[in-house]
Amino acid sequence: MKLIYEGKAKKIYDDFKTVKGQPTVIMEFKDSLTAFNAQKKGQFSQKGQLNLKFSQKVFEMLSEKGVAHHVVEVLDQNRIRVLKLKMLPVEVVVRNKTAGSLAQRLGFAEGIQLKKPLVEFYLKNDTLQDPLLTENQIETLEIMTFDEIKAAQVLALKINLELLQFFNHVGVDLIDFKIEMGKDESSKLYLADEITPDSCRLWDQKTQEKLDKDVFRRDLGDVGEAYKKIAQKIGIEI
Amino acid sequence: MKLIYEGKAKKIYDDFKTVKGQPTVIMEFKDSLTAFNAQKKGQFSQKGQLNLKFSQKVFEMLSEKGVAHHVVEVLDQNRIRVLKLKMLPVEVVVRNKTAGSLAQRLGFAEGIQLKKPLVEFYLKNDTLQDPLLTENQIETLEIMTFDEIKAAQVLALKINLELLQFFNHVGVDLIDFKIEMGKDESSKLYLADEITPDSCRLWDQKTQEKLDKDVFRRDLGDVGEAYKKIAQKIGIEI
Repeated sequence: MKLIYEGKAKKIYDDFKTVKGQPTVIMEFKDSLTAFNAQKKGQFSQKGQLNLKFSQKVFEMLSEKGVAHHVVEVLDQNRIRVLKLKMLPVEVVVRNKTAGSLAQRLGFAEGIQLKKPLVEFYLKNDTLQDPLLTENQIETLEIMTFDEIKAAQVLALKINLELLQFFNHVGVDLIDFKIEMGKDESSKLYLADEITPDSCRLWDQKTQEKLDKDVFRRDLGDVGEAYKKIAQKIGIEI
Repeated sequence: MKLIYEGKAKKIYDDFKTVKGQPTVIMEFKDSLTAFNAQKKGQFSQKGQLNLKFSQKVFEMLSEKGVAHHVVEVLDQNRIRVLKLKMLPVEVVVRNKTAGSLAQRLGFAEGIQLKKPLVEFYLKNDTLQDPLLTENQIETLEIMTFDEIKAAQVLALKINLELLQFFNHVGVDLIDFKIEMGKDESSKLYLADEITPDSCRLWDQKTQEKLDKDVFRRDLGDVGEAYKKIAQKIGIEI
């Protein structure tokens, strides 16, 4: 089994196994937690397990709603088997309310309801600190094709619609989230990577309490407790 | 006469005069030169006059090609009368080759020919350092309407086409440029502000010599000489 990638919160191994003719890899969820392009580092016990369960629960819900995702099977508490995809070179962010970098860069307060969901693309490049890309830049610089941009937007907005309902059902506002996507050999587009409190902003509708990585980024309290709270809300047993 | 705005390279005065029923203001070109959001400052003698003549020459050429601009008349060496417009809250950048912030932010070498001209929008906000905006951000955050975005793109691309030919005719490559636009009371869109070596990247086709503000930004030599050289190339007597 060969380690082919180690990121901030996950490792990818290749054991050269195919499932139904499609190559797969193993994704391991680590207990580490990073922010600000890995300048701030942390971890808590069982974080990897918790995020795996969280992502799995969300992906299964999305699957029922017709969203194709990369997970093939859960191997153990920290590892899943996923399709080996050709990843899009961008992170896709969907925002329902202003927060984070959008609010800071453009001088808006946090928590303002947008008139419609906003889809943004960021170049996946740690050295360049994942710069924002306009659609025209993506197309003109041949980072992705026009059709890929449009397909990614459609998939992102579909996922947003389902996630909004899912979290609203348990009294939580989905402020924004980041996803990644990849294509298989037949160019079918899949939701990949993860959907976890690392990659979403989730605010308790009653208390406005943050139940996501901002607790760690901004030193707002016990991040482990926040992650457990949001996990329990969506029905995960710890 | 009331000073209503002082920018990095220009002052605007209101003398409350209308021309053919349209309110106007006076724009004065200063001798100062700034870069990096005014962190670097300079000046050279007659820079204001030179930029006024340069912009005037380019605007007159564009006018002949059907581009509406804000200049009503030249008052003296440093001052022009312009229409008092409702300015779009963005700077519009058009790029033909990679350079400057695009190259740096996205990790490209300078001088790569783009497959088609790239139009970008930057929020006019010195405090926020004029952040890049995606079209979706502009529309969703209600900075401009969809129709305003499209009209600004069409006008910017038309201007680019004419400028490319104009500079190519004198052996100069137009790498990129920044313009501003404004609307009159009937919502007609005009090219406003200026087109000068402050706001364009212009490279000599034979020598690749830079004949623009990058000479100042990057300490590449005598910026006054560079500005005079490009002015002479387009037929301005100094």
